[in-house]
Amino acid sequence: MDFIRPILHVAGLLIAGLGVAMLIPAAVDAAWGARDWEAFVASALFTWLVGSLTVIATRRPEPVRLSVRQAFLMTSFVWIAMSAFSALPLLGLGLDYDDAFFEAVSGFTTTGSTVLTGLDELPPGILLWRALMQWIGGVGIVVMAIIILPFLRVGGMQLFHTESSDQSEKIVPRPAQLVGYIVAVYVALTLAAAVSFALAGMSPFDAMCHAMTTLSTGGFANYDASFGAFGPTAQWFCVLFMLAGALPFVVYIKAIKGEPLAIWSDPQVRVLVAFLAVLSLATGIWLSRTAGLGVEEGIRLATFNIVSVVTTTGFASADYTRWGPPAEGLFLILTFVGGCAGSTSGGIKIYRFQILHRVVAAHLRRLARPSRVVRLQYGGRRLPDDVPASVLAFLAVYIGSVAMFTLVLAMMGLDIVTALSAVAQAIGNVGPGLGPIVGPAGTFAPLPDAAKWILAAAMLLGRLELFTLLVLLDPDFWRS
Amino acid sequence: MDFIRPILHVAGLLIAGLGVAMLIPAAVDAAWGARDWEAFVASALFTWLVGSLTVIATRRPEPVRLSVRQAFLMTSFVWIAMSAFSALPLLGLGLDYDDAFFEAVSGFTTTGSTVLTGLDELPPGILLWRALMQWIGGVGIVVMAIIILPFLRVGGMQLFHTESSDQSEKIVPRPAQLVGYIVAVYVALTLAAAVSFALAGMSPFDAMCHAMTTLSTGGFANYDASFGAFGPTAQWFCVLFMLAGALPFVVYIKAIKGEPLAIWSDPQVRVLVAFLAVLSLATGIWLSRTAGLGVEEGIRLATFNIVSVVTTTGFASADYTRWGPPAEGLFLILTFVGGCAGSTSGGIKIYRFQILHRVVAAHLRRLARPSRVVRLQYGGRRLPDDVPASVLAFLAVYIGSVAMFTLVLAMMGLDIVTALSAVAQAIGNVGPGLGPIVGPAGTFAPLPDAAKWILAAAMLLGRLELFTLLVLLDPDFWRS
Repeated sequence: MDFIRPILHVAGLLIAGLGVAMLIPAAVDAAWGARDWEAFVASALFTWLVGSLTVIATRRPEPVRLSVRQAFLMTSFVWIAMSAFSALPLLGLGLDYDDAFFEAVSGFTTTGSTVLTGLDELPPGILLWRALMQWIGGVGIVVMAIIILPFLRVGGMQLFHTESSDQSEKIVPRPAQLVGYIVAVYVALTLAAAVSFALAGMSPFDAMCHAMTTLSTGGFANYDASFGAFGPTAQWFCVLFMLAGALPFVVYIKAIKGEPLAIWSDPQVRVLVAFLAVLSLATGIWLSRTAGLGVEEGIRLATFNIVSVVTTTGFASADYTRWGPPAEGLFLILTFVGGCAGSTSGGIKIYRFQILHRVVAAHLRRLARPSRVVRLQYGGRRLPDDVPASVLAFLAVYIGSVAMFTLVLAMMGLDIVTALSAVAQAIGNVGPGLGPIVGPAGTFAPLPDAAKWILAAAMLLGRLELFTLLVLLDPDFWRS
Repeated sequence: MDFIRPILHVAGLLIAGLGVAMLIPAAVDAAWGARDWEAFVASALFTWLVGSLTVIATRRPEPVRLSVRQAFLMTSFVWIAMSAFSALPLLGLGLDYDDAFFEAVSGFTTTGSTVLTGLDELPPGILLWRALMQWIGGVGIVVMAIIILPFLRVGGMQLFHTESSDQSEKIVPRPAQLVGYIVAVYVALTLAAAVSFALAGMSPFDAMCHAMTTLSTGGFANYDASFGAFGPTAQWFCVLFMLAGALPFVVYIKAIKGEPLAIWSDPQVRVLVAFLAVLSLATGIWLSRTAGLGVEEGIRLATFNIVSVVTTTGFASADYTRWGPPAEGLFLILTFVGGCAGSTSGGIKIYRFQILHRVVAAHLRRLARPSRVVRLQYGGRRLPDDVPASVLAFLAVYIGSVAMFTLVLAMMGLDIVTALSAVAQAIGNVGPGLGPIVGPAGTFAPLPDAAKWILAAAMLLGRLELFTLLVLLDPDFWRS
């Protein structure tokens, strides 16, 4: 009980806050005259009550201090509990809990897969709630990635122990203050996105909702046509802010603190931006030639959808699966890439590819000349010795999970392309997969309920960097 | 020139020998009255001449001694050159060189993909030559894996430096003698397979050819129906000898030398056999229920095809892609597994999965209790420190190569399932992929020529454990 108490206490605080947040969409739907404001109010009361009672029941005079094991359990528990409560208002739409939980997990993990269709006709409170879930999930993951994960040493994240926590502590003395900076940057970028979208002609409501799902690299949209519902200017702004969400938030804090060039000296940022620029340009030119489009349109279509998948946002401005096998192959591979560590995006992430590249290059050098000493470096510093093994463990579990979940979905009768792409996008928190059901023009609704639970588990697994969740399955974890 | 001379010398010896070997199918076809004996004789003369002239031109009084870099270049060069010359007799069938080279690479790498159809009507010399290529390639890879690779430290193979080279040296004093033992075991097992097949009712010619392509885990068959042309008894014998080809040959040598239990104390053997037994049984029972077959037939179909793909043989006794999405998903995943290191089979291989499992387990333990010291062990010994990074490098390049080659094939217009499964089977040296073209009931003939060259490159890359070939692409390798 002493082990669980502080975990429940923190979770209770967050759940009570979530209940209060539900009053915002309740007010919007009540003002708009949609009946489901009642579902929001009921869910808000219930959620706030459960959260508050938990807080009271677990209160102790001394401040909360967590051990490493408690931090693991808390992180996983919070993500699952927040999703479970966030699903409640969606029941007001007539969804069963399977679908509502899937939608909520897809929201909180900033994945963006949806079981809803006819988005254009939904009450605004529901659309706002979907955007809010992603927005809260987005800032949550940045806080987790910058403050908790390096401390837990998950999957090579100890690499950012010095870079973010330690070094940032020089700039920003205490974690509470660091959280404040992260939230401030996140809010400022969201407002900037909303203003840009509004200037590009979107309604204030659409601008706000899509700003929240863009910055969080979530990808829930207010229309079945996704971002294809908006014009070219809005799409280019969206590219910019999806990218902003996929950069390490530490560089923004450094920029505020007087190091504006930190953004370009970060090794992840340079590689991600160069990769996206070259790939988008090449694909755009190919597309404008094969599809007979104008060059601007080809490059815009390619850039928007590539940036959307790589940053794991998951908006679509067109059904890119119709561009033929080369595009299908490309987007399936891009589903695995992901953005930078310390951002809102998922996937394998740029720094792991950089470490892979360094390990492979060093292996090749040592093969040819066994006597040579090769020191691995990252960002100008020596790579800690345990990082390659951590990245190996992460990569093995990532690929292994994709294989296992794909097999399970295939056993439920899904064809291979649907099963594989659905799992890859779920673990990478991307949003759309390939094929008529899970593709950018489809909906996850027709999947069997069991498949939805599997995919929800995959989203949580990916969002929690695999090991935060997996460590709980090790019996050794529970031995005191 | 001094760098290349000994490499050309060794290659010349092997090529001259290859020329002599071509006289066997020449004699068979001449006796049978097939016109293409002329193609065999012409190819034999040309190959023997090129080989012999190379040997003479590069002869020096001192014995050949190779540096590490020379050993890399020699291994890659020999595999490519042997394939290039072995393709020549196939031109006598009217194949163009693209197809002939593909078939020869598929033979020498013991992959077993074929561009030929109407196998049942081909002259026996051609069938024998296909079997011989795989048989020679099979013994070649065992020699390479046991004697050369541990010394080159490729992709974690240094793990077997002590286990095979050093320890075996205690038993078998010198490499030349070790090669003798390997060849003796290989010949004995092939003869045992041939006798078993003949007892099961196969013609002496079929028994001999299929014994050669079984032990080498190659998978070329004399019939379009592959091993489905033979009865249940022959199929069960084939399961046994495919497995024999996929076990580490070091255990056979130990068995001869008075350690018959070495086969069961080898960690790779136990895991591979247990994995195949459980999976075959489960799949067989599922199959007999869903397809309405008898239990023996279900288990036999499942066991044969699973063992065939996991040992990377690639025979089929049925078109398992018709068993539905679960089977397709399963066989796609099994394409990556592979047999044991030091055997004739390809793929990622059992010991790498064992290392992955240990690294992941240790990572999980250390996450929960950071102060704990976890020592990695393998086969009762401490795991060398550089093995995890080597396995990481291998896994990264393996998965990365699959992704890149898949994208290239997709850019040639192949659908994703065909492209992905064709590449995965090629790098794993398996044989069949999924779908109507590259699946177990298809033929690679309709693929574009460029795709055949890509797949041939993938087969060579996989057969040479990726890094033996890749190290040559590093400019640093060529600096003296």
